[in-house]
Amino acid sequence: MHDFLINRHTIRSYSDKSVDDHLLNSLLETACRASNTGNMQAYSVVVTKDSERKKELAPFHFNQKQVTNAPVVLTFCADLNRLTKWCQNRNTTPGFANLQSLTYASIDAVILAQAFCTAAESQGLGICYLGTTTYNAEQISQLFQLPKLVIPITTVTVGYPAEALDLDKSDRLPLSAVIHQEMYTDYTSSAIDEAYRMKESMPQNQQFVEINGKENLAQVYAEIRYAQKETDYFSETWIEAIKKQGYID
Amino acid sequence: MHDFLINRHTIRSYSDKSVDDHLLNSLLETACRASNTGNMQAYSVVVTKDSERKKELAPFHFNQKQVTNAPVVLTFCADLNRLTKWCQNRNTTPGFANLQSLTYASIDAVILAQAFCTAAESQGLGICYLGTTTYNAEQISQLFQLPKLVIPITTVTVGYPAEALDLDKSDRLPLSAVIHQEMYTDYTSSAIDEAYRMKESMPQNQQFVEINGKENLAQVYAEIRYAQKETDYFSETWIEAIKKQGYID
Repeated sequence: MHDFLINRHTIRSYSDKSVDDHLLNSLLETACRASNTGNMQAYSVVVTKDSERKKELAPFHFNQKQVTNAPVVLTFCADLNRLTKWCQNRNTTPGFANLQSLTYASIDAVILAQAFCTAAESQGLGICYLGTTTYNAEQISQLFQLPKLVIPITTVTVGYPAEALDLDKSDRLPLSAVIHQEMYTDYTSSAIDEAYRMKESMPQNQQFVEINGKENLAQVYAEIRYAQKETDYFSETWIEAIKKQGYID
Repeated sequence: MHDFLINRHTIRSYSDKSVDDHLLNSLLETACRASNTGNMQAYSVVVTKDSERKKELAPFHFNQKQVTNAPVVLTFCADLNRLTKWCQNRNTTPGFANLQSLTYASIDAVILAQAFCTAAESQGLGICYLGTTTYNAEQISQLFQLPKLVIPITTVTVGYPAEALDLDKSDRLPLSAVIHQEMYTDYTSSAIDEAYRMKESMPQNQQFVEINGKENLAQVYAEIRYAQKETDYFSETWIEAIKKQGYID
């Protein structure tokens, strides 16, 4: 297996070195070779390089430093606008304004994003996903002037790593905890203990629990990082954005 | 750029050669190195190798031949059940039963799927995505006995290619048609013509139009392959599945 597949790591700090346009386009073109639904390519990518624009974008990603620090920010969007316009120009009426269309377009946008990330990492670049994209999708749509049937799904920051690659690969669940043979085997209490034992015993996670003043790591996730009140709220903003971009009434 | 990234191609016919378990696990483990939201790994993979099970699964993918023909079928699921159980076992109450949680878990499941596909292709395997997964998510959930907060998002068939790699890479839109610099530039009628010119001129696509008895390729998509009546119907089934798996009321 290629080293860049196994030893990858999210990169949040980038050097000053810019990403050459020719390289960026070649990475995006390679990414477009990945699979997509019915070869419709129901996606678009908004490229942000302008530093003023990055400053405008940053608050919608809760000012995570990568947005202004990275030379390039890519916003991967589900896009059924282009296909709709194509159909309208070809004397037919498409029916893409629904949740199933949004779903396959979103899947395609993420496949494209991940194919891009792998290609970028194969060339020594580092990436970071911003999961905040669907939290503030309405504001991001306004900033980029996305028309109906275009909605941001995920964002990737790209650049040359300033930080050393941390090769500690241990903070993933054991594979047995995420795969199921033939049927889904639900998790017993002891299976949960087994799955999370390594993660819970890691010094950086124990420190994380302590900093947050909680008893254990699960509480940090459930009560602080992904508290119900906030995820419920950002479910509402997400539904509003989906409505506003015309996928549901 | 590595050849397996550029010259990839969807593979729908597989040889009889089975995929070694050790290799499969090592590919899945590599894929788990990809990014995921908050390092929660809110996904599960159901591995189907049993031929009887494949026969049961096939109709939910409209009997696409890959399901029974491929040695391995992987169903990538958004899974907040494991995290919920973890939290419950750690004396806290999580709030993952909402649309934002489903969204990031779905994004993570697709990132995992695509990372797997790339790793598999780097080892000479061929893959095919089945976009039918969210069309019949409820039936697939029943078949695999998925509990609440687990829902299938995409499916990948894997095996050694029986077909020769078709290196005709031309059937993608020009990159300029899918990327936008700084702001989204909406498509004028002539931009649409420009974007789709190459695709529309390809002999196989012209033949496809003729077989379907339509005037042009857009009509085949809008009126046959992704007709409004069907995508609306499968939006309803998808919403039903999301409800049934407990993400919305």
